[in-house]
Amino acid sequence: MKLLEEGIPLAELSIERIARTAGVGKAAIYRRWSGKEELFVDVVRSAEPADPELPGTSMRADLVVLLETQRQRGVFSRQSVILHNVHAQMKSSPKIWAAYQNTVIAPRRRLGLEVLRRGQSNGELRDDVDIELLYDLFVGPMLVRSVLRPDGDLPDGLAERIVDTLLEGLRPVSSRPG
Amino acid sequence: MKLLEEGIPLAELSIERIARTAGVGKAAIYRRWSGKEELFVDVVRSAEPADPELPGTSMRADLVVLLETQRQRGVFSRQSVILHNVHAQMKSSPKIWAAYQNTVIAPRRRLGLEVLRRGQSNGELRDDVDIELLYDLFVGPMLVRSVLRPDGDLPDGLAERIVDTLLEGLRPVSSRPG
Repeated sequence: MKLLEEGIPLAELSIERIARTAGVGKAAIYRRWSGKEELFVDVVRSAEPADPELPGTSMRADLVVLLETQRQRGVFSRQSVILHNVHAQMKSSPKIWAAYQNTVIAPRRRLGLEVLRRGQSNGELRDDVDIELLYDLFVGPMLVRSVLRPDGDLPDGLAERIVDTLLEGLRPVSSRPG
Repeated sequence: MKLLEEGIPLAELSIERIARTAGVGKAAIYRRWSGKEELFVDVVRSAEPADPELPGTSMRADLVVLLETQRQRGVFSRQSVILHNVHAQMKSSPKIWAAYQNTVIAPRRRLGLEVLRRGQSNGELRDDVDIELLYDLFVGPMLVRSVLRPDGDLPDGLAERIVDTLLEGLRPVSSRPG
């Protein structure tokens, strides 16, 4: 993290230099990480807000927590110049990007799909729509605001608003079949 | 486009070189574009599927067309190595990225908001939710699949499915208030 704060580009970071900065031997690094990519992904993950504990009281409650965490990551990475630069650099390195997708993004998606499956089986969520599509309907709006549009509005309460509006539907209440 | 196809990086493109390749004088270029950034954005826009004519028969029909165009852009840019590279390079140049946002993305958003406003006034869309949020609820899922996840599924009929599922709501039909 110290090296990243100093603005050292990813391409110039080596295990040797990291070990030297940390005051340990290269062997100590390799005992824990198989390479520069894995270490880097762990650094990014530890800099971001941690994955949350889910309340487990309802699908709605779990979804709100998942989306709220995404919102906080968005708010946080706007405030953190380092995290912002690190994300940009990460995307320009296909190997690191793939490692980040596999070890950070994919588990989040699996967790979200699990929450939705519970909702389908306990009757909170319709079960006639493909679960992958349902996942994108819930997380898409928050991802667009937090990741794609650096000026997107991320107010308190947005997670709850997205989840409830989607559950209720976008048609006017008066015109809904009873 | 020829220079981009040859893999010339954006940073090495100059108005002079573009004029020479096109067999025209620099003055001819400057009569139409105020600089490299504006020209580049126009090249990208002309390479992408054009903005569609909206049927105007209903908000639903217009929304489906808007989302279908976004889907086609996603499918298209996966097939086009040039377009893919160009997008990546564009993002790494803040000036070009801003020009692209202002001249291509912002008008699309304005058009989408207009369609939604018509839907609110003709009773197709609930009017108790912020229109900017409604816009992100509709376009977010398609943007996530087409832009954020290069392996996201973009099947035929997805636009229609997103619009109708959102209008109906994600709660099971049986548990809805009548």
